[in-house]
Amino acid sequence: MASKFFAIVAGVGAGTGRSVALRFAQAYPVVLLARKPESYTDIVAEISAAGGQAMGIAADTSDTQAVASALDEIKKLWGDKKLAAAIYNASGGFSRKPFLELTLDELDQSFAGSPRGLFNFSQAVLPFLLASVPEPPPHGPPTLIITGATASVRGSARFATFAAGKFAVRALAQSLAREFGPQGVHVAHTIIDGVIDIPRTKGFNVNDGKPDGKISPDAIAENYWYLHRQHRSSFTHELDLRPYVEQF
Amino acid sequence: MASKFFAIVAGVGAGTGRSVALRFAQAYPVVLLARKPESYTDIVAEISAAGGQAMGIAADTSDTQAVASALDEIKKLWGDKKLAAAIYNASGGFSRKPFLELTLDELDQSFAGSPRGLFNFSQAVLPFLLASVPEPPPHGPPTLIITGATASVRGSARFATFAAGKFAVRALAQSLAREFGPQGVHVAHTIIDGVIDIPRTKGFNVNDGKPDGKISPDAIAENYWYLHRQHRSSFTHELDLRPYVEQF
Amino acid sequence: MASKFFAIVAGVGAGTGRSVALRFAQAYPVVLLARKPESYTDIVAEISAAGGQAMGIAADTSDTQAVASALDEIKKLWGDKKLAAAIYNASGGFSRKPFLELTLDELDQSFAGSPRGLFNFSQAVLPFLLASVPEPPPHGPPTLIITGATASVRGSARFATFAAGKFAVRALAQSLAREFGPQGVHVAHTIIDGVIDIPRTKGFNVNDGKPDGKISPDAIAENYWYLHRQHRSSFTHELDLRPYVEQF
Amino acid sequence: MASKFFAIVAGVGAGTGRSVALRFAQAYPVVLLARKPESYTDIVAEISAAGGQAMGIAADTSDTQAVASALDEIKKLWGDKKLAAAIYNASGGFSRKPFLELTLDELDQSFAGSPRGLFNFSQAVLPFLLASVPEPPPHGPPTLIITGATASVRGSARFATFAAGKFAVRALAQSLAREFGPQGVHVAHTIIDGVIDIPRTKGFNVNDGKPDGKISPDAIAENYWYLHRQHRSSFTHELDLRPYVEQF
Repeated sequence: MASKFFAIVAGVGAGTGRSVALRFAQAYPVVLLARKPESYTDIVAEISAAGGQAMGIAADTSDTQAVASALDEIKKLWGDKKLAAAIYNASGGFSRKPFLELTLDELDQSFAGSPRGLFNFSQAVLPFLLASVPEPPPHGPPTLIITGATASVRGSARFATFAAGKFAVRALAQSLAREFGPQGVHVAHTIIDGVIDIPRTKGFNVNDGKPDGKISPDAIAENYWYLHRQHRSSFTHELDLRPYVEQF
Repeated sequence: MASKFFAIVAGVGAGTGRSVALRFAQAYPVVLLARKPESYTDIVAEISAAGGQAMGIAADTSDTQAVASALDEIKKLWGDKKLAAAIYNASGGFSRKPFLELTLDELDQSFAGSPRGLFNFSQAVLPFLLASVPEPPPHGPPTLIITGATASVRGSARFATFAAGKFAVRALAQSLAREFGPQGVHVAHTIIDGVIDIPRTKGFNVNDGKPDGKISPDAIAENYWYLHRQHRSSFTHELDLRPYVEQF
Repeated sequence: MASKFFAIVAGVGAGTGRSVALRFAQAYPVVLLARKPESYTDIVAEISAAGGQAMGIAADTSDTQAVASALDEIKKLWGDKKLAAAIYNASGGFSRKPFLELTLDELDQSFAGSPRGLFNFSQAVLPFLLASVPEPPPHGPPTLIITGATASVRGSARFATFAAGKFAVRALAQSLAREFGPQGVHVAHTIIDGVIDIPRTKGFNVNDGKPDGKISPDAIAENYWYLHRQHRSSFTHELDLRPYVEQF
Repeated sequence: MASKFFAIVAGVGAGTGRSVALRFAQAYPVVLLARKPESYTDIVAEISAAGGQAMGIAADTSDTQAVASALDEIKKLWGDKKLAAAIYNASGGFSRKPFLELTLDELDQSFAGSPRGLFNFSQAVLPFLLASVPEPPPHGPPTLIITGATASVRGSARFATFAAGKFAVRALAQSLAREFGPQGVHVAHTIIDGVIDIPRTKGFNVNDGKPDGKISPDAIAENYWYLHRQHRSSFTHELDLRPYVEQF
């Protein structure tokens, strides 16, 4: 039997995006957005192999037209389905440098992948999420989840451009929550406060190498799924997640 | 078969405490603490009727000796069990008045029920929670959850004494999280940002009477259960919960 | 010519309180409150020697009666003067210990000197400050300034009781600002985020011993004076102060 | 006698920028940056008439080249002077609209005038400010002040793009403070939490029309001057300013 709802994840790769897609695919067909097909091909296969349904679409979320085209494609293929959850997990360029060595281009890259991408994505998915309010998805109200980081709430030295993008994302998330929450859409922002345990961070010495000193992407995915399941009488807007051994 | 773990809830009554006790009783035998037996008698019966196990102990958490006696009683009766989760849901006196009409006694009552009670409770339960770290409970790491409110992060006009108590509780929660988190105990603080839907608030006109405009205590309980289930690589320290229609 | 206004400083000693008293004494006669006369005797003399006017009163601000008596004494001696500014600089007991080694008495001491003292002091001085609104003091609107610390906004490990008192003070400060600001009284709270350069901290190695790595109490006093001078169209409620080399 | 130091204000017009320029011109020659000469011509004349020294330069701070050219011009004309203080008061486009009616262009305009402009401006002035550290200006350490707003800390409904720009500015301000503070440059960010009393807001009904219910731009300027004067042992990073009658 075909599901009447689907989920969409922007910014999939080897880490959080993949885990989130796999988690939501246990309940809904999932669309995976990434700039390049190689970021999602394996995950689509993995979901299919597990008996789920998935499609990948190559789209740069900082490109308004690309996002619109992606949504058109979804309508064509899955026009009978309504949107249950949208997750924005993309991120802009990350530069860790003394401020005077940064370029305006690095600031723009941070904006492109973070707030501009979220802006386009939100404008594309919110009409779908609103349309799902009257007959809500089986597992929870229509949900938009946005991934943030420590840099969303703290502008550290040498993180100027990265933090600027993340702060801006948080501003958008708050504004969306305050506008669309009362209309029945759950908008949540997460503060991932630690290093995520993914292939790229394998060699990082984090929290003295203690077990579970890096954040499990599967654990993040469980939390995102939980946010989707929250009852509308008790929505969480901002969720911090950090390893038990993390300094904060 | 007897469970090897139990949970304890301080501050049970007709609202959050009852729902939390019922929720945790689905997995663990539960101890209910309240100043007066009439606050827990019905809940103990309700848990038993549902096939769970519960005991109530009358104790004022602001009284160090009373808390110690309660723990002694638990050891005597359930000495074979270890502590999985402790929830502090008690609250001090609430006065909504112009500042110059408040009395020092009202400030003291706010402290008694909020930070002083939490202090005694935490000193009593933390050694038990630490003892559960090596062989953790089946559903999640040993957990201490502390109930906060809007007044935990905002000192509004005419809420001086209530906010003072709630801010102090939040300070303790942060300090405990930073000390005991790295030792494996999950300490979480919640911001209940809205009116809870309990008998006492039945007639309150909240959020224009919109459906689910008050927070369901059962939904709070689900969230507390979820906090207990979080993987130690991704603990949440502070969880905000508010109705979708709540201004914030 | 006798001044028509006076200032009052609670919590004077060798550090901030002394500097604040000296600074305000340049403009107003000053009352100094401290638990013991030896805390203010030298400062009173210093102010007199500099051509100012001061009186010391021994009073424990955590004792409601003692504060009331102090105010009675002021009325008797300086009944012709109105209150321009009140500064609460007292602090409760400070314990830096693992949580399980703390006693409830240490929590109570933190509350006594911090929020309870502020509560009594505010109830005593606010009627005087309100009375000064119609014909405001020459240098600025009637002002209540409350000293906070890093622990006012952060509950660090091993600072549980100290942070609880400081958080509670901040709650009171916010509540007072929101109630009395619209009535014309400027209520400000400061976050002193660093080690103050006083006799007691002489040997402390702070910020690698860099010059001005500790906060000058005279600089704090200049800031407090500045808060008093702010125009009522642009009040600051919370002022952070830290050395240029301080990590934050 | 020629002053050895100058100040620079980016974003001058009829409000805060003008008042800040006039205030700093009491102590230093001042450079005024604005997109269009008509924004500064009158102010330059006003400063000259008051016996001060000023020059205006037309430059869009969101244009890296334009900022660099402006600095070159300053070097040519005032190459003998060192920089005492730089104030960033420019702001991006302001749109108050339902999110789905906003365009990406409006987000980009908010970024252009706010974080991108600040980025260019900071990269241009920080080397000058650093050069002033060894022999500091007569009135205070070299200072960079950045104007923020309520939207810097709160993403309200219908303010998505404006808040995104302001949050990003705050991230940059924090990052700059943490990097350049320890090098001796005072970086401060202000939260202007209210309506400023300028020609454009003359007819606005604010705070029930109460006197001083709008923020006086001259009062803001006094506060900026005060920030410049702070001793380096006690820098303020974030200063909130609001009318005594403002809700917060």
